[in-house]
Amino acid sequence: MKHDDQNNYMAQALAEAKNAAKRGEIPVGVIIVDSTTGKIIASKGNATEAENDPSAHAEILVLRSACAIKGTPRLPECDLYVTLEPCPMCASAISFARIRRIYFGAYDPKGGGIEHGAKIFSHTTCHHRPEVYGGIREQECAKLLKDFFKDKR
Amino acid sequence: MKHDDQNNYMAQALAEAKNAAKRGEIPVGVIIVDSTTGKIIASKGNATEAENDPSAHAEILVLRSACAIKGTPRLPECDLYVTLEPCPMCASAISFARIRRIYFGAYDPKGGGIEHGAKIFSHTTCHHRPEVYGGIREQECAKLLKDFFKDKR
Repeated sequence: MKHDDQNNYMAQALAEAKNAAKRGEIPVGVIIVDSTTGKIIASKGNATEAENDPSAHAEILVLRSACAIKGTPRLPECDLYVTLEPCPMCASAISFARIRRIYFGAYDPKGGGIEHGAKIFSHTTCHHRPEVYGGIREQECAKLLKDFFKDKR
Repeated sequence: MKHDDQNNYMAQALAEAKNAAKRGEIPVGVIIVDSTTGKIIASKGNATEAENDPSAHAEILVLRSACAIKGTPRLPECDLYVTLEPCPMCASAISFARIRRIYFGAYDPKGGGIEHGAKIFSHTTCHHRPEVYGGIREQECAKLLKDFFKDKR
């Protein structure tokens, strides 16, 4: 895995986040990559408002989509790129799906569930801990969220 | 809320759990009740295997269904009855949905995320903490799970 690849994959997640903002959703975007082929399997943005669904975070939607495409609830050969540190709900779902690696952009001290708060992967009851890499294109990912909330006020 | 009502509502969740077992799914069942009317809005059982979806726990499915019926991602007037202590993913989703009260059956030291493990509602970053009542029809709920896993071996 080259540094350039990580940046390019996060650019795709950022594109999904920007599309989410245009739809009035909190701008978080995510893609799932098959590490054996390097191909993007699925990509999603946040859709909690459009779908009236509190569980419709980008990560839940992309896991559902990738699992449907692969025909299995487990994706041990896949990596996930997301613009914001996942919340506890999404971190748990990512663990259940056996995702190999998580690359995230901005850290989220208020809502994050990996480095902050519930720290989902730090408990002995967590059966699968993906490798975690934070801060990929951090400034761009954070700015997108900051600008979105500034415009909302 | 009378003690009898709680037992009757949990009987409905148990019926969903039994149906899940018949489909080969881990037997967890859940209902959502509108506390203002006492009516059951939605009821679901686990469907992770059938749907190839690691997020298709009964609680996620019932929240999605109840929110769709109500046309809102937030259900502050609703209570949730579930046969097993929710996992961290489901506990977080229940918090996001602003559910008023959780009544659960069996405690889950291995996978639970309320009284065990990540203890989702115990962090300052958790914005909404439902009232939690555990151990409703505990023996029946636990036996259903024990029998299911015994048959699997």
